[in-house]
Amino acid sequence: MSAENIKWNNLDTLKAFQELGKKEKVSLKDVMSGESGAARVKKYTMPMAAGLAYNYAAKAVNDDIIDGLAKLAEEAQLTDKFAALYNGEVINTGEKRLVLHHLTRSQLGEDVVKDGTNKREFYVAQQKKIEAFANDVHAGKIVNGAGEKFTTVVQIGIGGSDLGPRAMYLALENWAKQTGNFNMEAKFISNVDPDDAAGVLQGIDVAHSLFVLVSKSGTTLETLTNESFVKDALAKAGLDASRHMVAVTSETSPLAGNSDYLQAFFMDDFIGGRFSSTSAVGGAVLSLAFTPEVFARFLNGAAEEDKLVKNADVKANPALLDALIGVYERNILGFPATALLPYSQALSRFPAHLQQADMESNGKSVNRFGEFVNYPTGPVLFGEPGTNGQHSFYQLLHQGTDIVPLQFIGFKDSQLGVDVDIQGSTSQKKLCANVVAQIIAFACGKEDDNNNKKFAGNRPSSIIIGGQLTPEAMGALLSHYENKIMFQGFLWNVNSFDQEGVQLGKVLAKKVLAHETDGALKEFSELFEI
Amino acid sequence: MSAENIKWNNLDTLKAFQELGKKEKVSLKDVMSGESGAARVKKYTMPMAAGLAYNYAAKAVNDDIIDGLAKLAEEAQLTDKFAALYNGEVINTGEKRLVLHHLTRSQLGEDVVKDGTNKREFYVAQQKKIEAFANDVHAGKIVNGAGEKFTTVVQIGIGGSDLGPRAMYLALENWAKQTGNFNMEAKFISNVDPDDAAGVLQGIDVAHSLFVLVSKSGTTLETLTNESFVKDALAKAGLDASRHMVAVTSETSPLAGNSDYLQAFFMDDFIGGRFSSTSAVGGAVLSLAFTPEVFARFLNGAAEEDKLVKNADVKANPALLDALIGVYERNILGFPATALLPYSQALSRFPAHLQQADMESNGKSVNRFGEFVNYPTGPVLFGEPGTNGQHSFYQLLHQGTDIVPLQFIGFKDSQLGVDVDIQGSTSQKKLCANVVAQIIAFACGKEDDNNNKKFAGNRPSSIIIGGQLTPEAMGALLSHYENKIMFQGFLWNVNSFDQEGVQLGKVLAKKVLAHETDGALKEFSELFEI
Repeated sequence: MSAENIKWNNLDTLKAFQELGKKEKVSLKDVMSGESGAARVKKYTMPMAAGLAYNYAAKAVNDDIIDGLAKLAEEAQLTDKFAALYNGEVINTGEKRLVLHHLTRSQLGEDVVKDGTNKREFYVAQQKKIEAFANDVHAGKIVNGAGEKFTTVVQIGIGGSDLGPRAMYLALENWAKQTGNFNMEAKFISNVDPDDAAGVLQGIDVAHSLFVLVSKSGTTLETLTNESFVKDALAKAGLDASRHMVAVTSETSPLAGNSDYLQAFFMDDFIGGRFSSTSAVGGAVLSLAFTPEVFARFLNGAAEEDKLVKNADVKANPALLDALIGVYERNILGFPATALLPYSQALSRFPAHLQQADMESNGKSVNRFGEFVNYPTGPVLFGEPGTNGQHSFYQLLHQGTDIVPLQFIGFKDSQLGVDVDIQGSTSQKKLCANVVAQIIAFACGKEDDNNNKKFAGNRPSSIIIGGQLTPEAMGALLSHYENKIMFQGFLWNVNSFDQEGVQLGKVLAKKVLAHETDGALKEFSELFEI
Repeated sequence: MSAENIKWNNLDTLKAFQELGKKEKVSLKDVMSGESGAARVKKYTMPMAAGLAYNYAAKAVNDDIIDGLAKLAEEAQLTDKFAALYNGEVINTGEKRLVLHHLTRSQLGEDVVKDGTNKREFYVAQQKKIEAFANDVHAGKIVNGAGEKFTTVVQIGIGGSDLGPRAMYLALENWAKQTGNFNMEAKFISNVDPDDAAGVLQGIDVAHSLFVLVSKSGTTLETLTNESFVKDALAKAGLDASRHMVAVTSETSPLAGNSDYLQAFFMDDFIGGRFSSTSAVGGAVLSLAFTPEVFARFLNGAAEEDKLVKNADVKANPALLDALIGVYERNILGFPATALLPYSQALSRFPAHLQQADMESNGKSVNRFGEFVNYPTGPVLFGEPGTNGQHSFYQLLHQGTDIVPLQFIGFKDSQLGVDVDIQGSTSQKKLCANVVAQIIAFACGKEDDNNNKKFAGNRPSSIIIGGQLTPEAMGALLSHYENKIMFQGFLWNVNSFDQEGVQLGKVLAKKVLAHETDGALKEFSELFEI
């Protein structure tokens, strides 16, 4: 389908959406009980890349509703819109930009040539440049001023330059140690709070640290401030900063072609910060901390998952169905939040990354044409790893007055393979038993004569089940959620790729620092003695 | 007022609540603009302990609504109920228990004697026992089998035995290093995921580590499993586990009076896990990591704040007014979530702790008498430190379709005092300028011809402003939120001190491990090969 035939319509104007609202609702408690529940677990599942599977048995859907969701996907032209995106249409209409993060890991459609450059080739070239650099660092060919090897890599960046790469590093740190793929410890400096940089610098050996400065524009206030912080520390230690710093930036930024940096690796305006983990933004730190091969395997996992996402059949496209069910829960069932609950300590910061990816993309009130929409868009997203969350906020999820749809993730095997057998089972089996138990507890609930011990059930969840959290599995997980967010943005008819809501705060903060304030802003500034 | 005169009524039956709903709403955008806004910042503030101040200028209230909130506080007998609690009434009706966490830091009212024990004296005795133990460890009087000093303390616990102590440790770690109060690095093992324990153990020197096992009942599955994990590691290193472990538990638990532990420090059934940071649960790890004096200062901050909270005047009781405004936002304005946004990297895990404290306490659907209530109770609570959040989920907070009330925290000074001056200001000033700017951006918004760049404003926030995040300030902050949660529980007429919603998952997980499953539970178990 050519791009001219794509229609961008508000969700509430779509016939399929109106029909969907009229369909009989599913009593999850009923359908998940007994043999019906068993049949659903076997039926409502589909394979993902890297051995993962997406299971939606415990979502409040049935064949009739899934049929309605399929009609909605078709009417909203969701996979056509995805094709337009990866074929290089200007999908980010606000900023008039292409949206090309998929090209950092695969060629999904036509060649995308912009200003004479084949963009896939450009991203691959950056990956190769990082590979050569990381190999030289690991081999001791690139060393500090004293000729010694670097042992630590410190990423300086905020938002998308921090949350995704940090989450990916934590996700694969133990796996890399276990498999002999660990080269350098990674640390992260993000906040403009001086205690963040000072605290990290206290805990590392700066003489053997390589700093990766990440800013697309080269003008992010927090990041440049923290760069100065680090340069101060290097100078105080009698070290030449230019031997300790690399930049990840765009080719037109002041950080490019600058002798202050050992090397510069490039991204461009077509990679949004929150979608940049598979670009040089994630590539530099992950290739240095682990190996370039580990980063390549992570990209392959994402690429394999992306391919599944091209499929127009909702029953064979996990991100597409997940997105549709999410919109059904938000706009028809009326649930205001969603929780991401990975049963994996390694995924401890993955919810924080997806909190940005999701809420910054779809937390919008105007459609692609700048008109206010009449329906709720992106929900609040939060989460912590299980089983920890069970001992924390799950009380509200089970017995609170609001229903919060849940997204579980679980793996059969641990990463380190060290385990103990207590009361007849390993810790890993206990972990898996807990996530399974929670799905059923949320869906089916429990009767009790004492209302305080009663569980209403009917609380929907999905789960992604994998063998082990490998680089490929991490790539596939990342792709899944990125694409889910994209499809939901298409459904809500918002531009998921700009973030105008962050601008006003920046403008006012500058006024405060310049003492150009009045009214409440002036009074609050005085309370802080600014 | 005697306990018999206290009436426990549902929020929607209170006359003051009905009257409150009829009052004209405040346009925050209007009242926070110009001179009106400046006047509000000066007027709508009150002192807290440890030099903190609670400012609610940017909440959607005015004198009329505050008057209505005061009437609600009076009719709901909020400070009388608090007095009943600290004087030892059975406030936790479900479990028929007293609620005595305030006594871990101060004597607020009458002596509470239970089973012949003065409870305040009991908690103080535990604190003194910890003090003596920690001093001996720091002085090298209690050492490992080779006669060497311990360098690391590892807390093994989950939920309330993890989140609060971990958040407090991170909050004060840099402060302690800077002020010469740092003795031992602390680590935390919580998740039953074997990669959590294995990962922590890989990163420490077990021969010089002291493990603090925390479980009130002595039966928490995750904690006992992780204890075995640690004992395995100690045995493999040829070490005698009983020289490396202490217990924090109740006197009746199997961990008490057990030669497997160097020492046992006690709490009891009247300290809920999520309110246990000021008991031995926080006391052992914080006294060992820092000093007993630092822990005592933390308790003093909480005690000073608790005293303010006795005040029946809503304009002089920050926790009381904060609680009332939160219920106004939840039950009259209809907002489903709230965000906690500390502009302090040291408070990075404080939102996770309050997520438990708040959602586990008030995420309930039945009142104290086991009757279902007809109104929303506890909201979803989430948050990350600023300025990081600004580059993440703030897009939705500014321009999303739902309004999320905000709770800011900020400090004039950093903890480490290391800073750089860039573009005419330090990082600390930039941090403060940002939080001030955000308050105004959220409240007042901005007009723009382009709807995509328009900010609707009217998004309410409060802020707690302090000088520096010291132990006293941390104690006062903790007290504030604990007491706020308590008052909100009183208003919603729920029992904030039980957590029946966590039980069903435990029961089902045991069934899965025992292979006593059928239906969907059996099918999911097979997918995980349990």
